[in-house]
Amino acid sequence: MSLHEEMVAMGDKAVVAARELVLLGSRKKNNILQAMADEMEANAEVIKESNKKDMAAAKEAGLSSALQDRLLLTDTRITSMAKGLREVAGLKDPVGKAISRWIRPNGLEIVKTRVPIGVITVIYESRPNVTAETAALCLKTSNAIILRGGKESLHSNKAIAEALNAGGRKKGMPQNAIQIVQTVDRDAIRELVQLEGKIDLVIPRGGEGLIRAVTEQARIPVIKHYKGVCHVYVDETADLEMALRIVENAKCQRPGVCNAVETLLVHESIAPQFLPQVSEQLIKLGVTLKGDAAARELVPAMEPANEADWYEEYLDLVLSVGVVASPKAAVGHINKYGTHHSDAIIAESEGAQKMFTKEVDSSTVYVNASTRFTDGNEFGMGAEIGISTDKLHARGPMGLEELTTYKYIVHGKGQVRE
Amino acid sequence: MSLHEEMVAMGDKAVVAARELVLLGSRKKNNILQAMADEMEANAEVIKESNKKDMAAAKEAGLSSALQDRLLLTDTRITSMAKGLREVAGLKDPVGKAISRWIRPNGLEIVKTRVPIGVITVIYESRPNVTAETAALCLKTSNAIILRGGKESLHSNKAIAEALNAGGRKKGMPQNAIQIVQTVDRDAIRELVQLEGKIDLVIPRGGEGLIRAVTEQARIPVIKHYKGVCHVYVDETADLEMALRIVENAKCQRPGVCNAVETLLVHESIAPQFLPQVSEQLIKLGVTLKGDAAARELVPAMEPANEADWYEEYLDLVLSVGVVASPKAAVGHINKYGTHHSDAIIAESEGAQKMFTKEVDSSTVYVNASTRFTDGNEFGMGAEIGISTDKLHARGPMGLEELTTYKYIVHGKGQVRE
Repeated sequence: MSLHEEMVAMGDKAVVAARELVLLGSRKKNNILQAMADEMEANAEVIKESNKKDMAAAKEAGLSSALQDRLLLTDTRITSMAKGLREVAGLKDPVGKAISRWIRPNGLEIVKTRVPIGVITVIYESRPNVTAETAALCLKTSNAIILRGGKESLHSNKAIAEALNAGGRKKGMPQNAIQIVQTVDRDAIRELVQLEGKIDLVIPRGGEGLIRAVTEQARIPVIKHYKGVCHVYVDETADLEMALRIVENAKCQRPGVCNAVETLLVHESIAPQFLPQVSEQLIKLGVTLKGDAAARELVPAMEPANEADWYEEYLDLVLSVGVVASPKAAVGHINKYGTHHSDAIIAESEGAQKMFTKEVDSSTVYVNASTRFTDGNEFGMGAEIGISTDKLHARGPMGLEELTTYKYIVHGKGQVRE
Repeated sequence: MSLHEEMVAMGDKAVVAARELVLLGSRKKNNILQAMADEMEANAEVIKESNKKDMAAAKEAGLSSALQDRLLLTDTRITSMAKGLREVAGLKDPVGKAISRWIRPNGLEIVKTRVPIGVITVIYESRPNVTAETAALCLKTSNAIILRGGKESLHSNKAIAEALNAGGRKKGMPQNAIQIVQTVDRDAIRELVQLEGKIDLVIPRGGEGLIRAVTEQARIPVIKHYKGVCHVYVDETADLEMALRIVENAKCQRPGVCNAVETLLVHESIAPQFLPQVSEQLIKLGVTLKGDAAARELVPAMEPANEADWYEEYLDLVLSVGVVASPKAAVGHINKYGTHHSDAIIAESEGAQKMFTKEVDSSTVYVNASTRFTDGNEFGMGAEIGISTDKLHARGPMGLEELTTYKYIVHGKGQVRE
């Protein structure tokens, strides 16, 4: 069987599974998720054995210790995956809910109803816990899933999927609801993302190269989880103590994530007061600052920021710093250099707040709060499959609702069109 | 300037226009739409002159009289376009509306707010009135638009766009809110649909070839308006008089549109009674019937249906007819051969109705009504840009709401993440 035939066969199986998943009620799906969690814990040793193979290969390939750590599965991490499955079981099932309902003058009753998307493919890198998380969210929303993890975690992913499938089967999960691509051949990705009519959505989660390749090759809809070049703008009307607290949090609390701030913009009228303060505090915390000319005049300790820096997602204790003449200039900078992810204004002026929230073209716009809150849990969605940087279908944190679509169910009494 | 540079420049201008469109309030947008309508009527002679050039070329190229008719602009048609613009002015503006609002335990207030998508490209064929319709719907939702019509209607489209722009300018419409691709070079389409970061959405409206080309080339999200292979299933519990009326309406009231029925499926237990009746009625109305073996046994006047016929969108007075053993078998047929557009069950049995609406994977599923109601106006949306056959973002009739996305506006009082 060629790679193409193999992927087509997976797609066909997923379509059949999706039709069966539509029939499952919430209680049944929750039982399946509980059984998956139990099976995962019962098979912890098997999973760790498989993980050892990946770890050995990772060492041999010379993966960085950070990457090796992301790959490693311990008892604690396996328990935490199982706990995640049980938490998804506890969430509200959005499938089958009426989004809206209206009656037309001719008596037709239209109900816009939430339904599964169908077949979803998630293409991801490195961390094997994504396998369990993603499978759980898709099962909960009655979507069939085809998972394509990184080659470095193939053994771990397979062992996790086997546990999920074994647990699920005990409670009547349809066959092939969860499938894992068994080959490390990169061409499998191209084959998958061209399976029009079989796969309804592909979600790439990983580095820029992966996302770009998927976007270029895809003939099916893609929802990108792209980088976050997030900004905090400190207005001249800001409470500067609050601004200090927020900038520190947005940069330092967890610098390696997409909702951490990468660029600080400060209004010129408060820059002489605020920039030395915030710089002192950040430098103490180990942050490298890169400033524009105006910022460096006030804080000579800053390195110079070049044009490319404003586009940079550092994911590290590095911060670009710019001085702007007005809130409008801040918005201009953010819309130009940002990635439409999460951006904040710190201001007491309602006018500046309103202008900022209206004109900044980002999935989440904050007033007087840290950008770090862009997250499914923090938003109260309970869980997320990622944070969409696209504008279509899902924007920002993608929870269970975003893994559904809708259909119109129309009841009549024999109406025909005039 | 190369074609690539030309399209990039259009994209850049559209991005600027989109930022300005965000600032317009509903009243201003409605005034712009009214002024466009006035200008269109005032320039009827100019538009007809331009249309004459297209008509002459069409005759020379030997376009069918049907296509020539679609291309023709008369005073009545121009008045009707202007009326359409005024109707859009009268619709509710979805932009800026709160979709939902909640407060988190930490006091953060999250408002999910409807916002424009940004820059939309519509690629269409033939009918020049699409130019006015589409521009109006995008303006109303504060989206900038790049229009790429068929080469056969270029002069007409340009004249219409000039009237729209002239009218709009009088009331402060941002420059370049409505742009028309000025070249008939087909490569312009490829260039446009690869303008990531500039164009947010492309909507192809036209034949299968056009849609396929766009899907294969696009690196930006596409919402397809694809064909409708729609079904009516007549259950053994159907009110047969109602079934007759609905089948006739769904097939004959306007056979050339995507929500007309193409396949009739009849339960075997009522086929001996129903098929001869419905066939007699349809044949009288000029319909050609293509039946499977069981149907032809009951109605020998039918031509034989082959496998390819079940996939066929006839858009004509032709109907495929099949006999099925159960409602489940009807659903299986529809999900296999259909295009997930509009499908109906005629049945009194609530069990059959529920199974059908749950399991048929189509944008609109009808119980005891004609498939012909899948339409923005019939749904009460007021206007539509088309009928999406995709599952992501917009499914079924696409009205104003479907031309928007959302962002989260989060208000805090200095909250930081723990």
